[in-house]
Amino acid sequence: MEIGMIGIGRMGANMAKRLLRAGHKCVGYARRQETVQARIQDGSISDGATSLQDLVSKLQPRRIIWVMVPAASVDATLETLVPLLDKGDIIVDGGNSYYRDDIRRADMLEKHGIHYVDSGTSGGVWGLERGYCQMIGGEDETVAYLDPIFKALAPGKETAPATPERGQKGGTAEEGYLHCGPHGAGHFVKMVHNGIEYGIMAAYAEGFGILQKANIGKNTHEIDAETAPLQDPRFYQYDIDIPEVAELWRRGSVVGSWLLDLTAHALLKDPNLSQFQGRVSDSGEGRWTIQAAIDEGMPAHVLSAALFSRFSSRGEGEYGNKILSAMRFEFGGHHEKESK
Amino acid sequence: MEIGMIGIGRMGANMAKRLLRAGHKCVGYARRQETVQARIQDGSISDGATSLQDLVSKLQPRRIIWVMVPAASVDATLETLVPLLDKGDIIVDGGNSYYRDDIRRADMLEKHGIHYVDSGTSGGVWGLERGYCQMIGGEDETVAYLDPIFKALAPGKETAPATPERGQKGGTAEEGYLHCGPHGAGHFVKMVHNGIEYGIMAAYAEGFGILQKANIGKNTHEIDAETAPLQDPRFYQYDIDIPEVAELWRRGSVVGSWLLDLTAHALLKDPNLSQFQGRVSDSGEGRWTIQAAIDEGMPAHVLSAALFSRFSSRGEGEYGNKILSAMRFEFGGHHEKESK
Amino acid sequence: MEIGMIGIGRMGANMAKRLLRAGHKCVGYARRQETVQARIQDGSISDGATSLQDLVSKLQPRRIIWVMVPAASVDATLETLVPLLDKGDIIVDGGNSYYRDDIRRADMLEKHGIHYVDSGTSGGVWGLERGYCQMIGGEDETVAYLDPIFKALAPGKETAPATPERGQKGGTAEEGYLHCGPHGAGHFVKMVHNGIEYGIMAAYAEGFGILQKANIGKNTHEIDAETAPLQDPRFYQYDIDIPEVAELWRRGSVVGSWLLDLTAHALLKDPNLSQFQGRVSDSGEGRWTIQAAIDEGMPAHVLSAALFSRFSSRGEGEYGNKILSAMRFEFGGHHEKESK
Amino acid sequence: MEIGMIGIGRMGANMAKRLLRAGHKCVGYARRQETVQARIQDGSISDGATSLQDLVSKLQPRRIIWVMVPAASVDATLETLVPLLDKGDIIVDGGNSYYRDDIRRADMLEKHGIHYVDSGTSGGVWGLERGYCQMIGGEDETVAYLDPIFKALAPGKETAPATPERGQKGGTAEEGYLHCGPHGAGHFVKMVHNGIEYGIMAAYAEGFGILQKANIGKNTHEIDAETAPLQDPRFYQYDIDIPEVAELWRRGSVVGSWLLDLTAHALLKDPNLSQFQGRVSDSGEGRWTIQAAIDEGMPAHVLSAALFSRFSSRGEGEYGNKILSAMRFEFGGHHEKESK
Repeated sequence: MEIGMIGIGRMGANMAKRLLRAGHKCVGYARRQETVQARIQDGSISDGATSLQDLVSKLQPRRIIWVMVPAASVDATLETLVPLLDKGDIIVDGGNSYYRDDIRRADMLEKHGIHYVDSGTSGGVWGLERGYCQMIGGEDETVAYLDPIFKALAPGKETAPATPERGQKGGTAEEGYLHCGPHGAGHFVKMVHNGIEYGIMAAYAEGFGILQKANIGKNTHEIDAETAPLQDPRFYQYDIDIPEVAELWRRGSVVGSWLLDLTAHALLKDPNLSQFQGRVSDSGEGRWTIQAAIDEGMPAHVLSAALFSRFSSRGEGEYGNKILSAMRFEFGGHHEKESK
Repeated sequence: MEIGMIGIGRMGANMAKRLLRAGHKCVGYARRQETVQARIQDGSISDGATSLQDLVSKLQPRRIIWVMVPAASVDATLETLVPLLDKGDIIVDGGNSYYRDDIRRADMLEKHGIHYVDSGTSGGVWGLERGYCQMIGGEDETVAYLDPIFKALAPGKETAPATPERGQKGGTAEEGYLHCGPHGAGHFVKMVHNGIEYGIMAAYAEGFGILQKANIGKNTHEIDAETAPLQDPRFYQYDIDIPEVAELWRRGSVVGSWLLDLTAHALLKDPNLSQFQGRVSDSGEGRWTIQAAIDEGMPAHVLSAALFSRFSSRGEGEYGNKILSAMRFEFGGHHEKESK
Repeated sequence: MEIGMIGIGRMGANMAKRLLRAGHKCVGYARRQETVQARIQDGSISDGATSLQDLVSKLQPRRIIWVMVPAASVDATLETLVPLLDKGDIIVDGGNSYYRDDIRRADMLEKHGIHYVDSGTSGGVWGLERGYCQMIGGEDETVAYLDPIFKALAPGKETAPATPERGQKGGTAEEGYLHCGPHGAGHFVKMVHNGIEYGIMAAYAEGFGILQKANIGKNTHEIDAETAPLQDPRFYQYDIDIPEVAELWRRGSVVGSWLLDLTAHALLKDPNLSQFQGRVSDSGEGRWTIQAAIDEGMPAHVLSAALFSRFSSRGEGEYGNKILSAMRFEFGGHHEKESK
Repeated sequence: MEIGMIGIGRMGANMAKRLLRAGHKCVGYARRQETVQARIQDGSISDGATSLQDLVSKLQPRRIIWVMVPAASVDATLETLVPLLDKGDIIVDGGNSYYRDDIRRADMLEKHGIHYVDSGTSGGVWGLERGYCQMIGGEDETVAYLDPIFKALAPGKETAPATPERGQKGGTAEEGYLHCGPHGAGHFVKMVHNGIEYGIMAAYAEGFGILQKANIGKNTHEIDAETAPLQDPRFYQYDIDIPEVAELWRRGSVVGSWLLDLTAHALLKDPNLSQFQGRVSDSGEGRWTIQAAIDEGMPAHVLSAALFSRFSSRGEGEYGNKILSAMRFEFGGHHEKESK
């Protein structure tokens, strides 16, 4: 098949390249023409477009346009794009849109006779090689029409051992893509996927943090009323080789995962992670996941803690912390201790 | 009655002064003689001692020694003190000892015929004026013997309106002191008290933090894949006068409390709390409370979050945060954003 | 002044009665005429209305209509009410509306020349006696016009000791009401107030829970691989008199508060709280507070934990818990233990 | 080599069998002789013992005894075992002991000239097939001596793809076992491993829970002041096929892991998990992990939330929840809503 790809940054370009490898065609468009030229040069796209109009003109109806831009830019892109399209054309939002925007957009596009599909895509910079896990929302007919595209992007059945007892159940989930439901369902599932991702990442981060401080008993603590004395310093005398522990857990343990594989790699190269400051970004889905949990009345202690810890890592809780220090001063005359 | 007070810092001195006001006598001891002299001068103590031996010699049997030193110094104090005492003498630990140490010490002292009482004391620098809330553990007989002391230190019944329907139930809890149980029970209850204190403080701190950021929609956000766009900036346009909100809630609201009174005072003087950095200490009881919750299998989501947020405020989670940034770089090629 | 009160349930009726005591007039309306008659009988309202039309006709322009209905019914009420009003009339939403709805409603009403004020009201069933803490949003002129009403409802300066050093600063916050900002600001502050309320309540609940299990060491634990053995049963031998501890902390302690006063009362009457099942409702503001925290990027570990614990108390996490048990069975062959 | 295995339940028997397959010998002992006979029959052990004395007599010095019993039974086992051993013999605790007990035991055994090794073992019922991930603490010489045993139990290098750039770094971590440090270091790392495991499991559980309630908008909500109205029911209309989502995420996604593989299997067999009640056990390491975090001053919001949610799943927070309901009744006259 042939698709037009709007947004050929790292993520979009790799997806295009994977499609090409599977025999599909892909016309790419980016705001900066240098980007388009570079992608043609490196073989990510089969052709480039100089404008959205040019992109549309280079595609045969029934056109498939894959939008791969930041969530905050999708609406602006659609505004320009929609008047250029014909009835029956399909727009796929493969980025990280909020699923509620999908519902709104699908409603709007339906009035123009244009079909909308939301496809949450996981795989990051590794997708070209590993394939992309795709969580898809939209009408049955449209999603079915796009099946060859999804299949080409997906990792494929052989990339994981079969689930025991699954037998000949079949289905696309085994390939790494799934039609999850009507408009927004794809990004809803992707949103929760990312919420879980935050939680898993935080679980590792906290655990490795505990290992890293396992030698805290080697430091002497002064005696004052402000510091909780370490009850038993002799129980915290371990200098754990954290990069090797990450490697260790990759085999046979209960906590093995792809995220652990990556962590082992990161720690191998830079055991003290000195190139990082520890200011952790979050990019929307984690937040929306908690909002969904709240709307549903579903307890999400862990996922919310993971999100809020990211906020804290960026110093966002400072005012609240000052309130605490102010209270302590008020009732106990406690002064803040100087930073170590 | 007459007591010997070991440790006449801010807390101990005020307690001594309150005892004097009630007609009791108090011989004070501190390591530095200047402290002792200063306390005599300011009328906190009726007499001073130059050594523990001197202190003991100045008290009539059945001696009452009130120990008011940092938790980490209690054992060292007892080691010197115990050989100087006689059977029947009483040691009260009025500091913030771990209740398990109380049990151990009571066992040890029992072998010497010395009675031990643990008294968790709340009131901070305000106790002289407001009275001290006392949570007491020990044998019935000993605690009863000390009743006049506890009563003199306590706030007194009139300091809070009677609980409706309480009628003539009586009991010392109405006065602000309570024999909570055997050895350690006093510090156990005090420990949980402080755990609750952490939780309440954090509730206010987070809430005021949310109010303080209520104008975040006034800042423009750039569009990139790393930043969660604020969905609706127009809903975050409020410049809340936080000191006045603190004052407001003191009357008629559900969240009125003494801690709020103090917060209103702190914010009145320094609305931006610019004298604080937001590095919040914790001093033992909060930690032990969570340990108790874990031992008991009691969920303590809020109290533990309050404790861990204090750790975070001091930058203790940095390594874990670096792990998160490293993971994000590994799977998505995400670079950390620069600090604002 | 004279107001019309729509919604004269427990909350609205008490507010009306407090206004009457201050010399204002209040025409009351409720769907059920029996309610209106009962309120006239018990002196809560000065007059009753048989319909919204009747209510409007009984008020002199510039009319003040105070809406005191469930948040979910406000829009329906406005739909009927607005056509009956004249330019310049004022609608006050004194319930627990979402502040974003205030902004929307104010915009809509502005087109009709009607003024809108949102007033978050704290005080519960105690407001008649204690006064109502009011957090107000709206235009300066309108809020100023209503000042006599707010003042009459408010607790008054004398209901709390003056904040030290406040001196002659003045302002209505000292009375217990505050104009917090433009439309929605009142309910925004009220929302955060309730978020804090959830956090404080949870802090007490967890703390008392830890005290209640302080005797867990008295139960013998069986030895099996499924149960975490209690390391030191002898440290959990306390039978704490929880009602008396609640009473105790009311005087001189750091955790004294109005919520504690109420808790002491509840525990006095029913020490085992046997009339409750422990299914804890939540009514909107706690949820919106967390949403605000997320939008603002403000860590709210404690307030979110308090909210999620309420969800858990109602069994909402059951499916997730089954997932956990299923995982444990899969990797370890662990079977669930029977309920005690 | 030849080892004696004390405790040949599911876990111990499988480990023995794996050793046999690698050419080692294993004499097994269990309290019940039927167990021993069954293990001989099924080929798990090369020989059986009728008593600890018999076991010891059947092993050649330098004896290696592997203890695989519940953590709470280790001390009792050692008490009987130690007098039967000779200097130089080695005891390995392969169970889930608290690392502090390892330190104590190693000290005690050292006095008898017996060497102690703690080996935290992950792999559950799958270890026979997948190999056991082993985290080892003890003296260098002893651990080195046991290397063939650890290697035979370990999964082996080929069971995971090599970490990129690791090259010829070597080390046993690549095989799936690691000497982590002195006595207790093995169980310390295993403890944190399990803490992480709790966190990861909870992340999935909460996420799947959110997916499972994605159709909550299909239920109508009544309008009352007690229930937070769902703001936008139309955004919660999804019937997600959760077993297929679990399968989907196994390929190409960021959240792929062995725990997810197991979850997909569990959901395949029983999509509603109706055989589980959702009462989730915890078995020690999760608790100790939080204690370590607290001692170290390391924020562990996520790992503690995972632990406390397990407590809640078993109804342990009930008293605290009743406190909350009691408070709500006191200040607002709110009655608990009936269970659905």
